[in-house]
Amino acid sequence: MSKSSTLTFDATADLLGQALAKNSLPDVVRVLSLLDVAETLEQLERLTTIDRALAYRTLPKGRAIEVFERLDARLQADLIEGLQDAEVADIFAALSPDDRVILMDELPAVLASRLILGLTDKERALTSTVLGYPQGAVGRYMSPEFVTTHPHLTAGQTMARVRAGIDDAESIYTIPVTDGGRHLVGMVSLRDVLRVGESELVADFAKEPLAVPAMQDVEEAARYCADAKALALPIVDAENRLVGILTVDDALRILEDAESEDAARAGGSEPLRRPYLSTPVRSIVQARVVWLLVLALGATLTVQVMGAFEATLAEQVVLSLFIPLLIGTGGNTGNQAATTITRALALGDVRPRDVVKVFAREVQVGALLGLLLGLLGFAVAAAIFTIPLGLVIGLTLLGVCTMAASVGGLMPLLGKTLKVDPAVFSNPFISTFVDATGLVIYFLVASSVLGI
Amino acid sequence: MSKSSTLTFDATADLLGQALAKNSLPDVVRVLSLLDVAETLEQLERLTTIDRALAYRTLPKGRAIEVFERLDARLQADLIEGLQDAEVADIFAALSPDDRVILMDELPAVLASRLILGLTDKERALTSTVLGYPQGAVGRYMSPEFVTTHPHLTAGQTMARVRAGIDDAESIYTIPVTDGGRHLVGMVSLRDVLRVGESELVADFAKEPLAVPAMQDVEEAARYCADAKALALPIVDAENRLVGILTVDDALRILEDAESEDAARAGGSEPLRRPYLSTPVRSIVQARVVWLLVLALGATLTVQVMGAFEATLAEQVVLSLFIPLLIGTGGNTGNQAATTITRALALGDVRPRDVVKVFAREVQVGALLGLLLGLLGFAVAAAIFTIPLGLVIGLTLLGVCTMAASVGGLMPLLGKTLKVDPAVFSNPFISTFVDATGLVIYFLVASSVLGI
Repeated sequence: MSKSSTLTFDATADLLGQALAKNSLPDVVRVLSLLDVAETLEQLERLTTIDRALAYRTLPKGRAIEVFERLDARLQADLIEGLQDAEVADIFAALSPDDRVILMDELPAVLASRLILGLTDKERALTSTVLGYPQGAVGRYMSPEFVTTHPHLTAGQTMARVRAGIDDAESIYTIPVTDGGRHLVGMVSLRDVLRVGESELVADFAKEPLAVPAMQDVEEAARYCADAKALALPIVDAENRLVGILTVDDALRILEDAESEDAARAGGSEPLRRPYLSTPVRSIVQARVVWLLVLALGATLTVQVMGAFEATLAEQVVLSLFIPLLIGTGGNTGNQAATTITRALALGDVRPRDVVKVFAREVQVGALLGLLLGLLGFAVAAAIFTIPLGLVIGLTLLGVCTMAASVGGLMPLLGKTLKVDPAVFSNPFISTFVDATGLVIYFLVASSVLGI
Repeated sequence: MSKSSTLTFDATADLLGQALAKNSLPDVVRVLSLLDVAETLEQLERLTTIDRALAYRTLPKGRAIEVFERLDARLQADLIEGLQDAEVADIFAALSPDDRVILMDELPAVLASRLILGLTDKERALTSTVLGYPQGAVGRYMSPEFVTTHPHLTAGQTMARVRAGIDDAESIYTIPVTDGGRHLVGMVSLRDVLRVGESELVADFAKEPLAVPAMQDVEEAARYCADAKALALPIVDAENRLVGILTVDDALRILEDAESEDAARAGGSEPLRRPYLSTPVRSIVQARVVWLLVLALGATLTVQVMGAFEATLAEQVVLSLFIPLLIGTGGNTGNQAATTITRALALGDVRPRDVVKVFAREVQVGALLGLLLGLLGFAVAAAIFTIPLGLVIGLTLLGVCTMAASVGGLMPLLGKTLKVDPAVFSNPFISTFVDATGLVIYFLVASSVLGI
């Protein structure tokens, strides 16, 4: 998208691939020198671990650090194993404290400790502030370097503070206002500081702060940052003292990872945590196999249900023809409801206490969908087979859709209440429960309508 | 999360609900006066259309406009129908040109035209710049109001331009650099302008611009903004002339909507485009019914396959017991692959031309998963039933998993190549194809192993 390269993405990928295949480092250097940081990143993310380490080491030092900062933490950790100690120490020192901590979570403990010891006192102190918060808390993702101002200072004095902190602070566009005890009392934007007169007091134009406690769940905090359209959010401790800021670019990355996780789990696997093409086949299998086994284990319940009705099936083999269609429709209806509610929970549109409202809506939605599909199913099956069989199919679709939509709607809420990822909780449960219950509904309806 | 309210979210929701149920406007005013903009928004999004209009009209004017600006376009359009013409005109004039155009897409054409005519000449001109781009292009979402600087100006002169444009421009933190013909030649951040000496020339510290063409797909542009960690991206026309900027908060909202859409479609329904609790049951049914019908129609293929093997089934009723498990496992494996590739496409990690790489990986992944599940399936089925039946189950699982993973991996790429949403394209196709093909594999394996 940038104008800096005259080659297309695909042509660059081909050239880079050829240069690496030939092990020709000068060619690699030549191709990479045509790219900007974003393009370099895109190309590196498509390579295997070894090729990526090779290509990375040909980058000039300044560019190398810029690229490193923006790689996923997993890929950073992969790279570090292939670099020399001095190079690693340089890169580690150049990272901001929050990025450093995220990388440390991916490194072997021994290496992480050695790297920490190599930092300057100041950087070590900043890093340990961030490290002090548990994984999953926003404190772990905040930047402990920020510019602040005070209510009794003027806009002009605030500008001087901004200029003084301009090299260290991660954001200078949102400036928290604190009192003598470091308590957060307000927030000003750099825009407002520039807009008002130089001598105007911060107290007179500061806004209510949008504070987030450092122990808050990181995904919730990031969503709040996005919803508030804030460029940065002040993070406070339990006594409302300012401890850091969360910037919008970190919020974006957090939401992107959360959404990759939700998408993967909705599809019944664990997130890969690396770009697809740079994930080894073995890791992809690992990300999927547990879920597949859990789902297959759950599905043995359907074998038992089928076994219980084997006599009915033997008498009316025609019943078995509709089994894939009926349980497929049940699964689809359940998935629709579960997906909608999982997303609504992620966006904060629905909360666990809305369980009665959600149930009431999904029963209605399921019954309406079931009525429609049931009428269709009746018409088709009655026309092709017999009217009693049409009745069985129609009534089963009505029952299965109503059941599946209500169960699908409730599961994510139950998951959230039990503090399990709603997507993890819903998926296997819906497949298993809806399939098995759907079969029971089918055979009961068939027995009573056909009198078997 | 904000400190401005002393009531919890739930208590506020209850109080507001009671006040609205009693139709007691003074109580509504009292509850809403305790909330900040973000909290007001969260509460409004949970109400029915009528209650929301009622509550909205009690807000003081300034607050009302702030809240309106941040509502989803659908809810904005709902609200406008309940407001008086003068109120609507005020709100419409206060919106930024890009938000105005997004709202216009939701309004009846007559109302939209009347509102446009009520704008000042300047606002009308800005709005028509944005309106000139097709839906889906980033030009439609950009802000046409921005501050620029030129290479021959100094940092001090640039600051003066920033101060002059501070009230109108949507972002002042990223400043595009243009030449005499409005061509984009660079980019400076406000941070850099403040950091360098007042007399330094822009030409000496400007960076390569990260330009995006106005006709670029909006989701790709937003993803690029996020990946580049940019607060704003310059948008250019075909001659590289600056026409607008895309700010990170708009990019975030675009990505959020795109992800809601992907999540909904992966779950087999259309996105609701309103918060769940404020969507009428009828609209939820509409969002789901078409997909459900398409999927059910596809599933009739399974009825035909089952019909073709009815004689086999009649001879060996025991075979029918495993049908839900086998097609369920196939569907799960296919979904896993499709979800992974759909997400990798959205993130730009995989492109359609990677089709051979993806296929090679998914065949391996599918075969490994199938081998594992197949061995397990063989052991269990051989132990409980017979060794030949164990063989049938084991071999079928191997075949189904390999087939499902490869088909699931290829479908999103095919969808992208055909310019259809990969999620839309993959879902029904995988369900139908994998279920039907899985059954064929099962019956063929059964026939040859059991000799029927």
